[in-house]
Amino acid sequence: MAMEYLSVTNAQQCILESVTALGAEPVKLEQSLGRVLAEEVRANRDIPPYDVSAMDGYAVRSADLAKVPATLEIIEDIKAGDMPTKTVQAGQCARIMTGAPVPQGADAVIRVEDTQFLAEGKVQINVAVKRGNDIRVQGESMRNGEVVLTAGTEITPGVIGVLATVKCAQVQVHHSPRVAILSTGDELEGMDDPVDPNKIPNSNSYALMAQVQALGIAPALLGIARDDPDELAEYLQRGLHFDVLLVSGGTSVGVHDYVRPTIEALGVQMKFWRVAMKPGHPLAFGILQRNSGGTTKDTFVFGLPGNPVSSMVCFEEFVAPALRRMTGHARLYRRTIAARLTHNIKHQAGRTEFIRVTLAKEEGGYTATSTGAQGSGMLLSMARADGLMAVPADSTGLAAGSMVTVQLLDGTVFQDDVGFKE
Amino acid sequence: MAMEYLSVTNAQQCILESVTALGAEPVKLEQSLGRVLAEEVRANRDIPPYDVSAMDGYAVRSADLAKVPATLEIIEDIKAGDMPTKTVQAGQCARIMTGAPVPQGADAVIRVEDTQFLAEGKVQINVAVKRGNDIRVQGESMRNGEVVLTAGTEITPGVIGVLATVKCAQVQVHHSPRVAILSTGDELEGMDDPVDPNKIPNSNSYALMAQVQALGIAPALLGIARDDPDELAEYLQRGLHFDVLLVSGGTSVGVHDYVRPTIEALGVQMKFWRVAMKPGHPLAFGILQRNSGGTTKDTFVFGLPGNPVSSMVCFEEFVAPALRRMTGHARLYRRTIAARLTHNIKHQAGRTEFIRVTLAKEEGGYTATSTGAQGSGMLLSMARADGLMAVPADSTGLAAGSMVTVQLLDGTVFQDDVGFKE
Repeated sequence: MAMEYLSVTNAQQCILESVTALGAEPVKLEQSLGRVLAEEVRANRDIPPYDVSAMDGYAVRSADLAKVPATLEIIEDIKAGDMPTKTVQAGQCARIMTGAPVPQGADAVIRVEDTQFLAEGKVQINVAVKRGNDIRVQGESMRNGEVVLTAGTEITPGVIGVLATVKCAQVQVHHSPRVAILSTGDELEGMDDPVDPNKIPNSNSYALMAQVQALGIAPALLGIARDDPDELAEYLQRGLHFDVLLVSGGTSVGVHDYVRPTIEALGVQMKFWRVAMKPGHPLAFGILQRNSGGTTKDTFVFGLPGNPVSSMVCFEEFVAPALRRMTGHARLYRRTIAARLTHNIKHQAGRTEFIRVTLAKEEGGYTATSTGAQGSGMLLSMARADGLMAVPADSTGLAAGSMVTVQLLDGTVFQDDVGFKE
Repeated sequence: MAMEYLSVTNAQQCILESVTALGAEPVKLEQSLGRVLAEEVRANRDIPPYDVSAMDGYAVRSADLAKVPATLEIIEDIKAGDMPTKTVQAGQCARIMTGAPVPQGADAVIRVEDTQFLAEGKVQINVAVKRGNDIRVQGESMRNGEVVLTAGTEITPGVIGVLATVKCAQVQVHHSPRVAILSTGDELEGMDDPVDPNKIPNSNSYALMAQVQALGIAPALLGIARDDPDELAEYLQRGLHFDVLLVSGGTSVGVHDYVRPTIEALGVQMKFWRVAMKPGHPLAFGILQRNSGGTTKDTFVFGLPGNPVSSMVCFEEFVAPALRRMTGHARLYRRTIAARLTHNIKHQAGRTEFIRVTLAKEEGGYTATSTGAQGSGMLLSMARADGLMAVPADSTGLAAGSMVTVQLLDGTVFQDDVGFKE
């Protein structure tokens, strides 16, 4: 295993080459939002199932309107849900409501605003129209048997509308990865422990929990492992039964010296543990092939920095794309936008830097402003940030007014490529 | 009540002037993601609680490094979680790990890469540094007693990290509105009904359900009310016990003729029912003041169009900002971005139009491309869309290459203003 620092994108590639989409399971439509279809879905009838009116108005024969105004006899009143019983003949029409079936004989609809109701069941039509006017043709939205959604589709509200249209009360989606979160370090104080002036609260477990939740996955919190080889091994072993294990900290004796050998002793193959980014390194990634009911499954282990901001940024850059791929998503990366920098940024060439920024609207776009001190303990900056500005590794600083790339920290729709230059 | 068409922003204002943030309730930190703080939160100690090392290295007296390389005696080994027991005197230093307390006497940290370990408990320091080098000062991230989060803060993963840092195992957040969804129309077929070639599947209830879920709210589905005044009244009455009632459709006999009088007969004050938008109108909004345990509470009623796309677009423009405000959010509107149009768009002046578009990245920004036919029954277009392009009401068409405004359809962070021109 090489000792060099990997670039951010090389580290991402190394991770993404290892992970694949998980298998499929059925979920109820009501619980499917945010999941990814593991099957293609076909229409089970034409939509609309017959020619329907797009307006409240009158179903007419367009040929009757060669000269307007024209007076037509109303032969029927058709509501949505009714089936017409009569055929419209020359000089006749039917009153029709939006969504109601167009009767035999009629070939156009005139909206009510372009008509005038007369006495004795007659109506005056004031405009001439072409055949097909304001008619939604049978099958124009969906054709019976047609593939309307392909496997791999992210389930958004619009997709749920389509699934309901083809009456999928239950859909096959990719499994959500089972994710375990472990914090390590003698200095950490648990949520339920009394306040100890010599200790540091364990915020990483909860911030990581929320980052996982924001991807629609419910993680398990394994608690805090102390700096004791046996205790650490015990906690790690518990976490290695999951699909993904996130271990934060352990830097009290150095990730390289202590957590890593324990992880390796448990059979995890380490792929890398250094990335040329700020905040961030050390970041470790490894794989355990475990036996699960006779088949081999992978557990992916991420060793995240103990500093709160570093841990969150590493999650965004490395863990989130991996979890997205496992959940079946094609778009793995957070959306990036262009923004105008409001101030100078100092940068020493060498590492890709992620600066927490707030965004503000301006004419035609956004401005980006640093949240202030960027120390990796400054968790408040992460709470205030709208996004992460990526400063390329070879940059020697950015001037106010420069256009920069900002990764949005929210959102459920991701993009195909990482979108920023290192 | 005036008969004119309201503009989109006037309709939004009318709605937003009526709704306010709901009261507060406690939730566990693990369940708080996406909610809004109803209380301010203060730090309960300094963070870091003492001066700590930002690096693995040596805690030194900077005055000892006037001439480098300098050789210092190592008096102690301090890990995170340890408390130092000795004071660093002239010519001495302590080995220190990231996050460990800086010992008395030392005023700077030298990272291990800038040192060379010698035999017999000595180390050679190769660089001179200023006082404070690589020390995170007590209270630099948070000061004991300081307000770290204000009421109204949206709970993101970063905020959850801060809440865990100050050990809020439970937080006060605004209530989520209770939302009921009702579809109306004789033509509708329920999810569990057998396929009837003369009926149209009820997709609106499920698409609206998912739009509500995407805001972090679990709605109640009331089912389908038939076009019968008594049945409709019964269903509506059930829905009026909720904070928000969404009624879609009923256009089989015209919203104005049938659903509206029944709603009004139940005591709902209608505020408007026409908006100059496409797709969209008719859109109705009304308020019922109901008695709830001795106090008066409001039920907000939205009458949404029966067409699937119209219903979803009206939800985004009118219902979502209202639900956001009720949930305590300050940022009510979906994020907008600028994009370059890839083709001409025809538009007849008069109504604000929302065109479903897909986005693609290009150098420095995004392109927007229509999803194709924009008929209001084309639900697949909503499934494919990344956003809604707002075409101003007074536009007479847009040329390929124009910069346009697109509302993103995903995302959990919203913005302060609607962001597009009508």
